[in-house]
Amino acid sequence: MSTVDVVGLDGDDTLWHSEIHFTLTQERVRELCEPWADAATFDERLLATERRNLAVFGYGVKGFVISTIEAMIELSDGRVAASDLATVIELGRELLTHPVELCPHVAEVVPALAERYRLVVITKGDLLHQESKLASSGLVEHLDEVEIVAEKDVATYRRVLERHGIDPARFVMVGNSLRSDIEPVLALGARAVHVPYEHVWAHEAMTDDEVGAGFARVADLSELPALLASLESS
Amino acid sequence: MSTVDVVGLDGDDTLWHSEIHFTLTQERVRELCEPWADAATFDERLLATERRNLAVFGYGVKGFVISTIEAMIELSDGRVAASDLATVIELGRELLTHPVELCPHVAEVVPALAERYRLVVITKGDLLHQESKLASSGLVEHLDEVEIVAEKDVATYRRVLERHGIDPARFVMVGNSLRSDIEPVLALGARAVHVPYEHVWAHEAMTDDEVGAGFARVADLSELPALLASLESS
Repeated sequence: MSTVDVVGLDGDDTLWHSEIHFTLTQERVRELCEPWADAATFDERLLATERRNLAVFGYGVKGFVISTIEAMIELSDGRVAASDLATVIELGRELLTHPVELCPHVAEVVPALAERYRLVVITKGDLLHQESKLASSGLVEHLDEVEIVAEKDVATYRRVLERHGIDPARFVMVGNSLRSDIEPVLALGARAVHVPYEHVWAHEAMTDDEVGAGFARVADLSELPALLASLESS
Repeated sequence: MSTVDVVGLDGDDTLWHSEIHFTLTQERVRELCEPWADAATFDERLLATERRNLAVFGYGVKGFVISTIEAMIELSDGRVAASDLATVIELGRELLTHPVELCPHVAEVVPALAERYRLVVITKGDLLHQESKLASSGLVEHLDEVEIVAEKDVATYRRVLERHGIDPARFVMVGNSLRSDIEPVLALGARAVHVPYEHVWAHEAMTDDEVGAGFARVADLSELPALLASLESS
């Protein structure tokens, strides 16, 4: 039961920075919207628009761009300048082409983990963007499998584990999102390690109490190898 | 050499209709742009914008929506009404939620093929949209694997075949796009069957001469089982 064979790694904000770039982009869009909405009103409307669109447009930069344009049109009652909407598309292009910046300790810890465990990246978002981030991360040679998924729920994790013949009892998922990386994994009877990240998108936010017991937490990835070893001996 | 174990099936315009919906949507957007551009100018600008954006935004409805908004802003020199851009987002939402319509003979032929071959759908586009089309296609129970990819080039097909332990010599790809379903597959030493579809996106267009010899063609999917049998006995 306690052996760990396979470690799952989340991508955005676990292996590489992501949310900080959305946060900075949102600040720039918020300024464009100052004639129509104060900061709180803008943030609230954008989040509501993104949530309404998630089931259709999905996660990632392209859905963010479309939701942002929609929110700006709504907030301004159609008076927003087309040039400001073109700026949003340009900001989206910058998000999609931004160089990958690995999170702290990833460059040392992932190769070390690869010597001991089978590593599977399980990440959600735009397919092309996730692939291009992976390709330029320098991590691919250490990974056994990559799964880019549309949603990280119990059904998705079950399908991924089955596809690769992974026993949930010997699988540990590592990620920054309680909602996407921890809760559904625990529900499958696997284990999970939370690595908090400073910026959390409101849609992903969840409290420990909502998740319940049964997961571990490290301050950063440098603590992960020792924690995984302790899971095996416990 | 001539045995066929695995049949690859393209999704859009091979299993289900897709391009016709983009064509109809483009006609509606073209009308919105009549104050700024005639039909040919609009089509040309949209195609150029889509091609420029492909490497960043990728295939699928979300990239189409963003490119369309960008082309409308450019063609109108920023004078386009925000409400017309909101209409484009709404048209994108309609494309993403449109019920799946299977192509002719798919409902009979796919289950029949599944009795004899391992079936792998290899399709490109937005991850969430492709997953939702598959889920409502009624075909999933007949499929052994599904691969949603960002681009259908030689490297992608090589990765997919390796991942599933498929020998190219025993693999046949079936699809409507010479560029995406036939040419890269032949380059790997596998075989391919072209099933023409009436509407072809200009970016996918390619002539038989550009592809070269070595692939088969059927008028529609009803001819596929006999053709596959003939490939094995040839």
